[in-house]
Amino acid sequence: MTTPISHPFYLDCDTGIDDALALAYLLASPQADVRGIGTVSGNVSAAVGARNTLDLLQLAGHAHIPVALGAHDPLAGEFGGGAPWVHGANGIGEVQLTTASAGLASESAAEMLVRLAHEHPGTLRVLAIGPLTNVAEALRLEPSLPALVEEITIMGGAALAPGNISPVAEANIHNDPEAAAEVLAAGWDVTLVPLDVTMANVLEECHRQELLAAAGPVPRALGEMLGYYFRFYEGIFGRPCSAMHDPLAAALAVGGVKAAVAPVVHAAVDTTDGPGRGQTVCDLRGSYLGYPEQPGARCRVVLSLEGDFAPHLVETLLTFAESSTAALAAGAAVPAPA
Amino acid sequence: MTTPISHPFYLDCDTGIDDALALAYLLASPQADVRGIGTVSGNVSAAVGARNTLDLLQLAGHAHIPVALGAHDPLAGEFGGGAPWVHGANGIGEVQLTTASAGLASESAAEMLVRLAHEHPGTLRVLAIGPLTNVAEALRLEPSLPALVEEITIMGGAALAPGNISPVAEANIHNDPEAAAEVLAAGWDVTLVPLDVTMANVLEECHRQELLAAAGPVPRALGEMLGYYFRFYEGIFGRPCSAMHDPLAAALAVGGVKAAVAPVVHAAVDTTDGPGRGQTVCDLRGSYLGYPEQPGARCRVVLSLEGDFAPHLVETLLTFAESSTAALAAGAAVPAPA
Repeated sequence: MTTPISHPFYLDCDTGIDDALALAYLLASPQADVRGIGTVSGNVSAAVGARNTLDLLQLAGHAHIPVALGAHDPLAGEFGGGAPWVHGANGIGEVQLTTASAGLASESAAEMLVRLAHEHPGTLRVLAIGPLTNVAEALRLEPSLPALVEEITIMGGAALAPGNISPVAEANIHNDPEAAAEVLAAGWDVTLVPLDVTMANVLEECHRQELLAAAGPVPRALGEMLGYYFRFYEGIFGRPCSAMHDPLAAALAVGGVKAAVAPVVHAAVDTTDGPGRGQTVCDLRGSYLGYPEQPGARCRVVLSLEGDFAPHLVETLLTFAESSTAALAAGAAVPAPA
Repeated sequence: MTTPISHPFYLDCDTGIDDALALAYLLASPQADVRGIGTVSGNVSAAVGARNTLDLLQLAGHAHIPVALGAHDPLAGEFGGGAPWVHGANGIGEVQLTTASAGLASESAAEMLVRLAHEHPGTLRVLAIGPLTNVAEALRLEPSLPALVEEITIMGGAALAPGNISPVAEANIHNDPEAAAEVLAAGWDVTLVPLDVTMANVLEECHRQELLAAAGPVPRALGEMLGYYFRFYEGIFGRPCSAMHDPLAAALAVGGVKAAVAPVVHAAVDTTDGPGRGQTVCDLRGSYLGYPEQPGARCRVVLSLEGDFAPHLVETLLTFAESSTAALAAGAAVPAPA
């Protein structure tokens, strides 16, 4: 067995229950070497997201990874207060974690991204699973960022699937359409992981029970958070389960799962004030011919996966059951399974 | 066998190859009593559409049906010149029909629609298969039109399917988004027949050959037109065939086919100048639960059909093979099959 190549990663997130799953997935993946994490307002405020990220890192035994506070407000307008009905008031489903001893980095999230890109020119991978404010700010700070970054993977948008914050818009993009428009228009190849694929790959109660039954505190904490998340998604799917937005983007970014249908197409973000605000307008008119090449297009839109994601996700997260007993011994507070 | 109930119909069209098919389908359907036809610029100018409509009516032995000229320009802006690459320069695939002896009605299309609604209060069915300029103008002329009309069926829009004139917009709606917005916002129940269902119900070359082999001039003329249409659609589907936009809307309006999935949802039209201009923003977020009821929603969006449409369409059109020998004898010029 060969050791997988480990890629330096910058994670931009708004932690959030599915962000917590994505973070844990990255930490458990030997292909990912997370060098820094920036937070942005989305599911929760950037500050609450940073708090959750620090606490999760400590729980997982990765307190050395620096966390930078990012933008509180989108490029235009103000932060709307997040989605407590989805993620809980604290963003992680009312699960109480031990407060981490580590503090925030002295740089901003955008500054961290630019610094890491210069430290790892041509090899840094960016995974953005919140609104794209920090990434847009980093592009403004360093216009050559696209040439320095190896890959950027974004959880966001809805191509042919319905939206989740409006009939046609997905929340990450809708929370800062102006930033998303700048990021998609920058001169790099973007992998977009939209609702088309994240709503089609669902974690079920049986998977949650596997996490809750694990020995380590990380899977158990995630399983507890998912209890809250499942209750929201019961109103969407009619049963306790959930979409796997952010961890699926993480798995695509590290190569843990592969896309089946993922055409590279022209894509734009609707920044009007009309009913399409925040929509990712992806040109999928070639669908009837299997998506012929679109010259100049740089947005790879993941529409379906090879294989089944949920078992891979659970298996990866369960590696924490062995590896983080140290964190457990350090007194991480995790509620007992309900 | 009982005689089907015949409903008075007003047809609004931009004739157009698939408009010609829809017109012939209506004329051949005992459930439809076409009392008037208005034309609008779309596939061709309103004037060319009226010429084609008059000529087709004469060919089909229905020269008594009045044809009114409608709007040349959309509510905002100017007519863009139509789609000769789809429908041919004359709008009917370069097929030459004998010029009808009947002239245009003295009223406008909008005036005709209002008059017919008053003459058939509560029973008039409106079938709109072009841009909605005339219907919007009729609503302005007679704000109580929604209460007078029994049903309005519109070929237009794209719900979850890609657009055909932009990544997200369908041509009829995109050609006059302001009119479409007024029509969808008026106080009536609308049946929308979008690309989701019209692109999924395709006429193949075998069906075209059945039309060409018919004895009467109407099926043969339609088969010839379809030759032109198929060449355009070969670039979309990769084989000679075509979508059946307008005749499918006609068949749904008369009840010749039935919708399988057709949720009643909130729908709006994007009238911004952004990338979503002309999009029909339909709220299909309930798809994962089988579309629960949306209080106040009045737009029925047809997403799929019961059964196979093409054989029904061909069978209906072939009834002209017997019925219009009189027109043939009158010297209708129809080119020989290629």
